Amino acid sequence: MSEETALVIFTPSGKRGRVPLGTPVLAAARQLGVDLDSVCGGRGICSKCQVSPGQGSFPKHGVTVAKTALSDWNAVEARYDEKRGLKEGRRLGCQALVQSDVVIDVPPESQVHKQVVRKAATERAITMDPATRLFYVEVREPDMHEPSGDLQRIREALKRDWDIDDVQAAPALLGKLQPALRKGKWSVTLAVWQDHRGGRPAILDIWPGYFEGRLHGLAIDLGSTTIAAHLCDLRNGQVVASAGVMNPQIRFGEDLMSRVSYAMMNPGGDAEMTAAVRTAMDGLALELATEAGVSPSEIVEATVVCNPVMHHLLLGIDPVELGQAPFALATSDAVNTESGAIGLGAINPLARAYILPCIAGHVGADCAAVALSEEPYKADDLVLICDVGTNAEILLGNKDKVLACSSPTGPAFEGAQISSGQRAAPGAIERVEIDPVTKEPRFRVIGSDLWSDDPGFDAAIAVHGVTGICGSGIIEAVAEMRMAGLVDPSGLIGSAEQTGTARSIPDGRTHSYVILDARDDDGPLITVTQGDIRAIQLAKSALYAGARLLMDELGTDTLDRVVLAGAFGAHISPKHAMVLGMIPDCDLAHVTSAGNAAGTGARIALCDISARARIEAEVHRIQKVETAIEPRFQEHFVAANAIPHATAPFPHLSSVVSLPEVSFNTGGGDSSRRRRRRS
Amino acid sequence: MSEETALVIFTPSGKRGRVPLGTPVLAAARQLGVDLDSVCGGRGICSKCQVSPGQGSFPKHGVTVAKTALSDWNAVEARYDEKRGLKEGRRLGCQALVQSDVVIDVPPESQVHKQVVRKAATERAITMDPATRLFYVEVREPDMHEPSGDLQRIREALKRDWDIDDVQAAPALLGKLQPALRKGKWSVTLAVWQDHRGGRPAILDIWPGYFEGRLHGLAIDLGSTTIAAHLCDLRNGQVVASAGVMNPQIRFGEDLMSRVSYAMMNPGGDAEMTAAVRTAMDGLALELATEAGVSPSEIVEATVVCNPVMHHLLLGIDPVELGQAPFALATSDAVNTESGAIGLGAINPLARAYILPCIAGHVGADCAAVALSEEPYKADDLVLICDVGTNAEILLGNKDKVLACSSPTGPAFEGAQISSGQRAAPGAIERVEIDPVTKEPRFRVIGSDLWSDDPGFDAAIAVHGVTGICGSGIIEAVAEMRMAGLVDPSGLIGSAEQTGTARSIPDGRTHSYVILDARDDDGPLITVTQGDIRAIQLAKSALYAGARLLMDELGTDTLDRVVLAGAFGAHISPKHAMVLGMIPDCDLAHVTSAGNAAGTGARIALCDISARARIEAEVHRIQKVETAIEPRFQEHFVAANAIPHATAPFPHLSSVVSLPEVSFNTGGGDSSRRRRRRS
Repeated sequence: MSEETALVIFTPSGKRGRVPLGTPVLAAARQLGVDLDSVCGGRGICSKCQVSPGQGSFPKHGVTVAKTALSDWNAVEARYDEKRGLKEGRRLGCQALVQSDVVIDVPPESQVHKQVVRKAATERAITMDPATRLFYVEVREPDMHEPSGDLQRIREALKRDWDIDDVQAAPALLGKLQPALRKGKWSVTLAVWQDHRGGRPAILDIWPGYFEGRLHGLAIDLGSTTIAAHLCDLRNGQVVASAGVMNPQIRFGEDLMSRVSYAMMNPGGDAEMTAAVRTAMDGLALELATEAGVSPSEIVEATVVCNPVMHHLLLGIDPVELGQAPFALATSDAVNTESGAIGLGAINPLARAYILPCIAGHVGADCAAVALSEEPYKADDLVLICDVGTNAEILLGNKDKVLACSSPTGPAFEGAQISSGQRAAPGAIERVEIDPVTKEPRFRVIGSDLWSDDPGFDAAIAVHGVTGICGSGIIEAVAEMRMAGLVDPSGLIGSAEQTGTARSIPDGRTHSYVILDARDDDGPLITVTQGDIRAIQLAKSALYAGARLLMDELGTDTLDRVVLAGAFGAHISPKHAMVLGMIPDCDLAHVTSAGNAAGTGARIALCDISARARIEAEVHRIQKVETAIEPRFQEHFVAANAIPHATAPFPHLSSVVSLPEVSFNTGGGDSSRRRRRRS
Repeated sequence: MSEETALVIFTPSGKRGRVPLGTPVLAAARQLGVDLDSVCGGRGICSKCQVSPGQGSFPKHGVTVAKTALSDWNAVEARYDEKRGLKEGRRLGCQALVQSDVVIDVPPESQVHKQVVRKAATERAITMDPATRLFYVEVREPDMHEPSGDLQRIREALKRDWDIDDVQAAPALLGKLQPALRKGKWSVTLAVWQDHRGGRPAILDIWPGYFEGRLHGLAIDLGSTTIAAHLCDLRNGQVVASAGVMNPQIRFGEDLMSRVSYAMMNPGGDAEMTAAVRTAMDGLALELATEAGVSPSEIVEATVVCNPVMHHLLLGIDPVELGQAPFALATSDAVNTESGAIGLGAINPLARAYILPCIAGHVGADCAAVALSEEPYKADDLVLICDVGTNAEILLGNKDKVLACSSPTGPAFEGAQISSGQRAAPGAIERVEIDPVTKEPRFRVIGSDLWSDDPGFDAAIAVHGVTGICGSGIIEAVAEMRMAGLVDPSGLIGSAEQTGTARSIPDGRTHSYVILDARDDDGPLITVTQGDIRAIQLAKSALYAGARLLMDELGTDTLDRVVLAGAFGAHISPKHAMVLGMIPDCDLAHVTSAGNAAGTGARIALCDISARARIEAEVHRIQKVETAIEPRFQEHFVAANAIPHATAPFPHLSSVVSLPEVSFNTGGGDSSRRRRRRS
C-alpha cells in the first residue's frame, strides 16, 4: 500500500486500480470504468450503488483487506438502513470511503448493465441498457442577475453529473419543469431518453426530488391475428404483466393479402385499419398498466415487431405496394419516433416508440425480432428457425450467411378456420394422444396438467370445461390420427369400416374423427373434420415449402438444428410437427421451441439499445428470398401436401416413428387390408 | 488557354478556376464554390441555374471571350424558352458547356444565398438561406432481388445529388412517399428542412416529379395587444401577405402582469390563454394563406418573436414564475419544434416552428429579434433602441457591450386606454399639428396624405371618415399641446380662460382639448382628455426611465443615436417623442425609425438560418438589467413624469424647440399671465 493511494479491486469484473485515500467507492468505480449504478449521482438518496466489501485474505487478487479498509458506517447509511433496510454486509458505494486496499463486490442488482436471464426454453441473458433511464440532479437556483432558463440549468446539471449533453425538451414538457423544480427544492429526477444512433437526448418526464417509482416499457408483438404485449420494468427487464387481444383488423380480412385487397378496393380502407389497430394497441397498453398497477405515465417506451403489412398499417401507410411485385416497402429502416405518432396515447405523452427494421417486402420487423432473439448469424451450426403464425417467418443459416423468407401459412395454426378451433385459452385442447390399437383419444386442456383419462380430470377442468381445440392441439390431433392409421398420407380420413373405430363418423361426403362427444351432458361435440385436415395441410405445406426453398438456395439437404417459434411455438411437439411434415427432417433431439421469439426480440430491443444497433446492422446482411414469385416454391408446396410429404426423405423421423401405410382414396379394400395387417 | 482546360471566371463573386473542356457551367460553379442555384440537380427541369455569359474582351479579368466559349443553345434550352421564355442573353447553366475561357455572370435570382433589400427606413440586406428548401431527385426503382425501402432509396439520392445525409421522415410523411414516387415515375421534389445546429435533416413534404410551387414561411410578431404576421416566399424573402389581429388574451388582462395574475388566480387559466392565442395565430396563418392564394400545405416554416409571458403562454407554460422575483424563465434558449406543438395546425402538418431565444425573465424573444434586426452589437457608435409596444424593449450599447431591459409602458402607445383611442387603421388620426398662436389643430388620418385643412380632405376620407386617434397620433397631439402651451410641464390641460381657446372644454373637474367635433354631422367628438395625458405620461415615463437606467449602468449621459421601433415606431415623429420626454435627449437628426424591428427580426430568422445561429450566440453576450427591482428605475420614473422631464437636461431639443413656460396647477392667474406674455 502506498502512502497516498490504495488498491481497489472490483468483482466480478476484476477491474482494479489505485485511488487516493478517502475516495468514495462509487467514485473509484467510475474512475476504473466499473459498472456501478447510481440514479442520484452519489448523494446517498437512491441506494442503487450498494456494494459488498470483502474482508481478510484474497490470495487470487494478492491482497489482504483490513477491517478498516472502508470508512465506518455513516449517518446516511444508518438512516437508509433504518428507513428501508440495508442487507447484511452491504454498504452504499457513495458513502463508504476507501482507506486501504480493498476488494469490493458489485452485486447484480447494483449493475446498470445487469444481465437478466430470460425465462424461455433456450435460456439467454438480456443485457439491461434501456434507452430511457432516470437521473437525479440538483439544479442551481435561478439568479436574477445572471439570468438563464430553468431548462438551461437542468442541462448544465445533466452535463456536469451525468455527461449528458444538449438534452432536448418538447414544449409539452416545458410546462412541467418549473413546478417540479420548485416542489423538489431544486432537485428533480428526470427520465432521459438517449438515442442509440447519437441523436440529441430528450427529457421525457420530470418529478420533484428523488423519484421512487420505476420506468416501464411495452414490448408489442403485433400479429395479423393477435396483438400480444409485455409490460416490462426498465430497471431489470422483468415482465410485470402480459396480455393479448385479437387484432381488430380481422374484420377487414383474415390474412394479410385480404387486408391489402380491402385497402385497394375501399377508399380510406387503409386508414380504417390503421385506426382499428392503433385503438386496440392503446387499449392493450392501458389494460397492462391497470393490471400491473403501473401509472400509464411511467410507461415511457414501446417497441413493436410486426410483419410488413401490419408495419405499414400501423404507421398509416397504404399497404397496396406490398400486394404486388416488387413488394416495395415505404421504409425498411427501424422507425424511432414519438409513441403518439403510432397512436399510443394512453401512456406517457412523450413516450418513445421503436419499430424494428424490416428485411424486405414480405419479411418484416417480426422476422428481424426473431433473428435478434435466436441469433442465427452467430450460430456455428446450420439452424432453421420457423416463426409460426398466420404468416410464417423463416430463417436459415449460420454465422457465414443467413437467408430469410416468409410464407403465407394462413390462420389454421392459430386455431382459426378449424371447425372446433379456438385460440389458446383455458378450456382449449392443447395435447392429443390416440391409441394406435384402440383408436381411442386422450387429451389435455389448457389450465390443467391432467390427461382426460386421469382420475380427477373432470373436477380439475370444471370451471372452463372443454371448449375447443387450439393450434398446438390440432397439430397433435392430425399427426396422431396419421400415426394411428386414421388418416392416410394424402390426408383422407377413413370411414368407420376402414379404420375400425366408431369415432370415425360420416360428415357429408367425408368423415370426421370424434375427440369428445359431451352432447348428452349439454357439452360440445369436438371433432377433426376433413376440412380441418385440408386447412392444416395447406398451412404446413406453405411452411415446409418456405423452409425447403431456403435450403435449396443455400444448397443443403440437411439441417443441424430446427427452432420452432411463434405464439404457440413453445407448445408444439417436435415429433408431431415432423410427422405432419411441417418442417424438414432433422434429428428430433435438435428440434427445440423458442416460444414467442418475435416477442422476445421486441423485449430485447426494449431493454437494450445496443441490440437495436445490432439488428439494424444485421438486417442488411440477411439475404431475403421471395417465395411469391419463385416457381420452386410452388413445386415444394404441392409435394408437401402429403403427410408427412411425398418426395423428401425423412431418415430421422423414420428411426423414431413408423407410419402405417394406409390409403382411403377409393374402394378402400386394399388399404384397409393393409392397415389391418399392421395393427 | 491550355489544351485540355479553360479558365472560367464568375461574376459578381470573382471566383475563377480552370475546368476541363465540356464541363457544364453548373458543374464548374459547384467545383469553384460559386453560389449558383439548382433545384433539379442539373437535369434541365427547374431553370434556376440561369447565367449570363459575357463576350469580347475583359481587361479587368485578363481574358477575351470567344463567341464559341460556351456550347450552342441546345434542345433543352430551346424547349424551355418556348414553354416559359428565357431572357435575352441567358443560358441554362446545366446545359451550356464550357468550350474556352469565359466570363459568366450569375444574376441575383440565380443565387441560392441571394441578398434581399428590406423595405425599411434603414435599408439592410437579408441573406436568403432558409432552413427548408426544395430538392428534386430521381430515385432508383425498387428491385425485389435487392430489397430496400423507398425511403432508403430517397436517402441515397439526396446523399448522392445534394450531399444531404441521414434525412428523417415522420410517420405522417411515410404514407405520402410511395404514391408520389410512382406518380412521378421515380422522380420527386422534396421539401427538406435542415437544422442550423447540425441535427438530422427532415423531409417535410414530397411532390411527384418537379414541383413548380413555392415554399413559404410565416414571420410572426406575437405582441401582448396585437399579433402581426408576414407570409414570406422562402426563395426570395418577399412578403406576399401581411395581416394582424388583436391578441384574444386581452380579455384575460390588458397588460402582461394582469395575465400572469389571471393565471395565478384561476386554475387552468394559463391553459385557457394558451388555447386562445394558438387559435388566433392559426386563424391568422390561414387568413394569410387565403389572401395570398398560397396552399396552406406550402407553408413549411414559422418563426415567432414575443415577450417572455407571451412566449410561455404560447408554449403552454404557466407564466407564474415571471410574475415574481427572480423572474425565472422555464427555458431561455431558442425553441425549435414542430409547428403543431405550438398549435399551428392549419399549415403543413410537418411544418417547423422556431421561436427566437429569450434574454432574461423580462427581456424576451422580441428583444432578441430587435437586436437581430438592428444589430447594436455591431455598432461603432452608442445606440439606444426602443421597441415601443404594450411593453417596451430597450437596448443600449455598441460592439463592446450591449445592455437590455424591458419596461411596462402599458397599452397607451397602441391607442388603448385613450378616450378616443383606436388601433392604427384607416380612419385613425395619425399626425397632429396645433398652431401655437390660434391653438387650432389640423391632422392627417390613415388612408390619405392630405391634412384636414387641405382642399379635398373630406372627399379623400369619405369612405372611412375620422374614427379615432391612434398611438402615433396621440403622441403628436400631446406634444403639440405642450408646444402650444395648452398643457403645462406637469401635464395639466389649461381651461379656456387659461389657454385662450374655446377648444379647451370642461370635462368633469378637469379639461379636454377638442381635436374634432363633428357631432352636428352625426360624426364623432374626438378629444384629448386629462386622463389621456396621464396615461401617456405613465407610458412615456416608463420608457424614459428604462432607457435612463441603461445609460446609468453604462455610465453615460449622452447618446450618439436613437432608433425607435415597434408596430407604430415607423410613424412616431422623433421631435414629438422628444418633446414628450419619451426618450433621452439626442441630436434629432440621429433619431430614426426602424419600423417593426421585432417583426423584421422574425423575418430575418425565417429567411436565414445563419441569423438563428448568430442571435443564439449574441443573446448570451447581451447583459440584462432588471427594472422591476431597481430603486433607480423608480426615481427615474417619477422624475420623468413631467413633459419633457423634470431634471434631465435636453440641450439638443432646446436648440430646436422652445417650450412655453406655463403652469395650470392652482388658481391659474400666474401661469396664465406667463402664458399670455409668451404668446
